[in-house]
Amino acid sequence: MTSLSNLPIRDDLRGKTPYGAPQKTVPVALNVNENTHPIPDDVAADIVAAVANAVHGVNRYPDREFVELRESLARYLGHDLTPAQIWAANGSNEVLQHVLQAFGGPGRTALGFAPTYSMYSLLAAGTGTQWLAGPRDDDFELSAETAVREIQRVDPDIVILCAPNNPTGTPLSIETIAAVYEASRGIVVVDEAYAEFMPTGSPSALSLLPGRERLLVSRTMSKAFAFAGARVGYLAADAAVTDALRLVRLPYHLSALTQAAAVAALAHSDEMLAMVGEISAQRDRLVTELAALGYLPHRSGSNFVLFGGVRDPHATFQSLLAQGVLIRDIGIPGHLRVTAGTEAETTAFLTALASLGHADEGTVPTTLNSQA
Amino acid sequence: MTSLSNLPIRDDLRGKTPYGAPQKTVPVALNVNENTHPIPDDVAADIVAAVANAVHGVNRYPDREFVELRESLARYLGHDLTPAQIWAANGSNEVLQHVLQAFGGPGRTALGFAPTYSMYSLLAAGTGTQWLAGPRDDDFELSAETAVREIQRVDPDIVILCAPNNPTGTPLSIETIAAVYEASRGIVVVDEAYAEFMPTGSPSALSLLPGRERLLVSRTMSKAFAFAGARVGYLAADAAVTDALRLVRLPYHLSALTQAAAVAALAHSDEMLAMVGEISAQRDRLVTELAALGYLPHRSGSNFVLFGGVRDPHATFQSLLAQGVLIRDIGIPGHLRVTAGTEAETTAFLTALASLGHADEGTVPTTLNSQA
Repeated sequence: MTSLSNLPIRDDLRGKTPYGAPQKTVPVALNVNENTHPIPDDVAADIVAAVANAVHGVNRYPDREFVELRESLARYLGHDLTPAQIWAANGSNEVLQHVLQAFGGPGRTALGFAPTYSMYSLLAAGTGTQWLAGPRDDDFELSAETAVREIQRVDPDIVILCAPNNPTGTPLSIETIAAVYEASRGIVVVDEAYAEFMPTGSPSALSLLPGRERLLVSRTMSKAFAFAGARVGYLAADAAVTDALRLVRLPYHLSALTQAAAVAALAHSDEMLAMVGEISAQRDRLVTELAALGYLPHRSGSNFVLFGGVRDPHATFQSLLAQGVLIRDIGIPGHLRVTAGTEAETTAFLTALASLGHADEGTVPTTLNSQA
Repeated sequence: MTSLSNLPIRDDLRGKTPYGAPQKTVPVALNVNENTHPIPDDVAADIVAAVANAVHGVNRYPDREFVELRESLARYLGHDLTPAQIWAANGSNEVLQHVLQAFGGPGRTALGFAPTYSMYSLLAAGTGTQWLAGPRDDDFELSAETAVREIQRVDPDIVILCAPNNPTGTPLSIETIAAVYEASRGIVVVDEAYAEFMPTGSPSALSLLPGRERLLVSRTMSKAFAFAGARVGYLAADAAVTDALRLVRLPYHLSALTQAAAVAALAHSDEMLAMVGEISAQRDRLVTELAALGYLPHRSGSNFVLFGGVRDPHATFQSLLAQGVLIRDIGIPGHLRVTAGTEAETTAFLTALASLGHADEGTVPTTLNSQA
């Protein structure tokens, strides 16, 4: 039987394993920061009707410029954005891949502040861009001072800021973003995948776009819009940036079905975003109750909570899984991450965790070793 | 206003323009080798039902391993293929991008035989792979001797064979494919995007897969399955190859809607492929009638015909467009390319062309310059 090592694969890929959050079927899956609320029935019906219409013409290539989708996204984002300032792709991973292909690549560097979204370094590697992991302050915060110091030290071609940050949930101040832009000479990407879960009235990096042609703000429909399965990420920036991305995208990269489904969902923004308030409330509940159980939850502006004070993360992870609750061990010592689910799912998680005792009590089986 | 040149774009992208087949709305569009037959109503209904089911769970990430789709594709292809031997992505362009990311890249080369599908060189550039354009024989044929000689001369890391070849329509013999494999040390991709339009009983490169772990056969649902708008390309190869591709794909690259729609369409393979016979008949008619009009059509195993003997391709293109018929000037001097449409569309094209007179008569306006 042929194995991978018998094939003429690139040397830098030898021995690597693919990205792999477990895809298990469990009663309560709170591991990959999905929106666990199915989309409302009336919205689903409109999406299906839009897709049915698109299927009628699916023998033709889709609109390569996804004009209607860009109009819908510009309208949703507000901030006086025009469709020419909008880009979209199959998930924000592909959006970011386009950015790295256009502005990164061999001989160029991209800087992020660790721990941060694990795909950044993989996307950098996949495009030949050198990934640089800068530091954070205590509690995973990122001050303007710390960020600027690192930018001055390494002079990156691209800076990627995750705001709020995954996997820590940490909000990022608009002042840090503005300072990073001023301090850098290259592209600054602000990944706002979880922005809708920030407190109402929190400023978005979108407000900084005018006059900052190197600033890119990426978003996704996976989280607030409960659209992870449809794969729609997008970006707002100067129109010249979308011209650049057009040079590297694959032609017809967005299917007619994707475009139709996304446009239909965006027409129901108000209803879709009603879920966000409930999820944010469950997140706040997680923070409160995790603290009451003796854990150390970090502040979060997203739909998940990272909590420390876990004596044996792997053992806790396994004990919860045995009770039908899947969360995530993201490799930070003493920490686990949990997505805010529906009220019932959040209760199931908290009940399962409480059954293991207070964080300080050490009721977690110690025969299992930590993988952190 | 910011222009592209003000941005820190990669040097190798400066001055480039994106891939751009015109997307015009015309009564008869025969320019991008689409299947111009809409999918049958009963198949469309099943696809919509499958998508409706997928929308119900679209808040969750899709199956990263697209297991059901791989099962359906393996069943469709036959040749005793297993799901582990199947890969798929958003169009065969993305499939090929994955191949180049895994086996090409900086310091590596990919060889094709020009003229061939224009995306190959763009995909190579996008992945940092050096593109090498080898020669063809007369009439765009490619003999084993010519191909092997070039492989021995340039020793490529990857060879891409387009069979039948786009934009020329030229079939490729199974003997040439086998000889190319024997002569090369690297990956050999056979792009069979148009394979279903070959005469019944023509051997596919799929028949060569056993024992050839470096051989990859790519296909698409865009053409025979009338699914260009849904973006589903796929590939069959040794299971170790799909392991390699898993290292470079973006996680969750295939949406739940795409997977559901494709599985539903594949369940109707027989009905979908019934269109293929009619299209092939129109292609054969094009060859016959183009010759009768004094043009020089090349032999074609695909759903389009390249024809020479065009005194002024740009003028003929424009004259047809003025009559509502869009075909393609692919930049080969004295040539144009036309897709085989429905019987009515093919008639419209032939009637419009005939109105310009016999190929030798020069009735085409000479005030328009050729762009070839």
